[in-house]
Amino acid sequence: MAIPMRLRAFSSSASAPKWEGGVSMVQGASRGIGLEFVRQLLEKNEKGHVIATCRDPAKATVLLELKNRFAERLNVLPLDVTVESTIEESARSITESYGSLNLLINASGILSIPGVLQPETTLTKVQKSSMMLAYEVNAVGPILVIKHMWPLLRVGGGLGTERDVAVVANVSARVGSIGDNRLGGWHSYRASKAALNQLTKTISVEFGRKKDPVACILLHPGTVDTDLSRPFQRNVPAEKLFTKEFSVQKLLNIINNTKQQDNGKFFAWDGQEIPW
Amino acid sequence: MAIPMRLRAFSSSASAPKWEGGVSMVQGASRGIGLEFVRQLLEKNEKGHVIATCRDPAKATVLLELKNRFAERLNVLPLDVTVESTIEESARSITESYGSLNLLINASGILSIPGVLQPETTLTKVQKSSMMLAYEVNAVGPILVIKHMWPLLRVGGGLGTERDVAVVANVSARVGSIGDNRLGGWHSYRASKAALNQLTKTISVEFGRKKDPVACILLHPGTVDTDLSRPFQRNVPAEKLFTKEFSVQKLLNIINNTKQQDNGKFFAWDGQEIPW
Ligand SMILES: NC(=O)c1ccc[n+]([C@@H]2O[C@H](COP(=O)([O-])OP(=O)(O)OC[C@H]3O[C@@H](n4cnc5c(N)ncnc54)[C@H](OP(=O)(O)O)[C@@H]3O)[C@@H](O)[C@H]2O)c1
Ligand SMILES: NC(=O)c1ccc[n+]([C@@H]2O[C@H](COP(=O)([O-])OP(=O)(O)OC[C@H]3O[C@@H](n4cnc5c(N)ncnc54)[C@H](OP(=O)(O)O)[C@@H]3O)[C@@H](O)[C@H]2O)c1
Repeated sequence: MAIPMRLRAFSSSASAPKWEGGVSMVQGASRGIGLEFVRQLLEKNEKGHVIATCRDPAKATVLLELKNRFAERLNVLPLDVTVESTIEESARSITESYGSLNLLINASGILSIPGVLQPETTLTKVQKSSMMLAYEVNAVGPILVIKHMWPLLRVGGGLGTERDVAVVANVSARVGSIGDNRLGGWHSYRASKAALNQLTKTISVEFGRKKDPVACILLHPGTVDTDLSRPFQRNVPAEKLFTKEFSVQKLLNIINNTKQQDNGKFFAWDGQEIPW
Repeated sequence: MAIPMRLRAFSSSASAPKWEGGVSMVQGASRGIGLEFVRQLLEKNEKGHVIATCRDPAKATVLLELKNRFAERLNVLPLDVTVESTIEESARSITESYGSLNLLINASGILSIPGVLQPETTLTKVQKSSMMLAYEVNAVGPILVIKHMWPLLRVGGGLGTERDVAVVANVSARVGSIGDNRLGGWHSYRASKAALNQLTKTISVEFGRKKDPVACILLHPGTVDTDLSRPFQRNVPAEKLFTKEFSVQKLLNIINNTKQQDNGKFFAWDGQEIPW
């Protein structure tokens, strides 16, 4: 007779997985790449549990449809990366309900917001307010999420998954690479993603030194057909514009194969490392 | 008979230097490395003019002593990189008094401020307010200064100096390098300097494409004995703790030898390139 999941979570055996199939958190799950991560994590792993967070769950209609379909395997929580109390509240809730995490995907991000933030085409268009906003959401936000989920990830490690380690996957972007910056422009976005890369590297050093069973990686999803890329797709050749389904399949493959020694690395969707 | 400087500035000959010896701006000149740049620029170049900016000139006593000594060759202006109107006001004043710039050194920067900002020793100590402040001062500030001085630098180019180009030198730090990050910690400072590196690279691409006579470089001064490094000097071997005089001498050497093809590069005090 199979032991019900909830009971297994309180098993006293230290080496037995608390949550068979693992517990994954996808932050920024209302739309785009984050939402697709939630869908594939639930569809491809029959036993895994997923916590999907977004700013306003009531408005995330497709996510709520998934909630209907996957019932208690999907837990939807409100989280705005610019409001640290919502991150702390999520950590408290996950601690109570699961007690551990095996995967944290930070998928939230902003590139343009009509009337507020526009990718800069020249230095003369750089505005302080845009610079600060992109940094707050794209760089500081994910780091605060990791800060509060770290204790859960240390407990989880690879238990219940096929990996040896828990994984933190921060969705960055190739345009955040300094060495690969040949086109210029997009100052606020580029700077925020370069900072995210530096912060992820910084955190990975600490995880490594503490011998935590947690590996931190950075992912470039390719140019993916989502709301974020839509205004900028005109010059993208059709074969280089990926579907969410394709990109997330590739990225999940990287995540599932992540080993301790990948800690601190920056991978493109095809597994190639991207220069800093 | 020598033509007075002021008159020469309005000379109609395009190729004649407006300001023999050049016009240099040092931003962040109240103390430390910035102040030493002002001193050496004035002492080593008998004809050059220097604009030194700082938050509160009235309190910058050593800078005011230099003003007494060098009279009209030194112009002191108030500028706080977090208040864009003070940058615009400086640009207006320099436009009126000189009409061009041949060198802009962004030397301002913060690492720790008692009670406000403390270099983080672990992820759990990362605070949003510190992250935002370090970014505002160390990354956004210098970029806004370049934005407003760009028209003056384009006019100046290398005229009146021994270079072919005007130079923008942003004082970064080796700990801003992602590839070289082996120790972790100092999240807010590291991220802000990585972002400064990315922004400088982004700007250099635009300068290059526009064929502007301006090269943008990043400099690591070494560990230099200033207020900024003082709380962290304990583990620095004596021979690796540089005097301001030594470091600035090395950095000025790099600046004076900067060519168009150095645009977008990141140099240590000894001329070695630092990985991103
Ligand atoms: N699409 C591409 O071509 C591409 C390329 C390279 C990198 N990326 C990166 O991939 C990630 C996902 O992008 P996407 O293409 O899926 O974009 P998207 O469709 O625009 O989705 C962005 C997501 O971020 C969330 N978000 C924005 N601000 C937030 C905040 N303050 N707190 C929490 N969530 C917030 C949004 O939530 P709301 O619904 O509440 O706004 C939304 O779920 C981003 O980090 C992006 O930079 C995308
Ligand atoms: N010293 C080192 O070992 C070392 C190593 C690597 C990189 N660096 C970099 O070198 C640069 C100079 O550092 P330092 O060692 O000379 O430091 P410092 O002695 O502490 O001087 C810092 C300077 O920045 C100015 N500043 C701070 N906030 C400002 C603002 N909002 N607007 C305008 N100016 C502001 C300060 O002006 P106030 O007097 O008004 O505060 C002061 O002139 C910094 O960018 C630093 O990151 C230093």
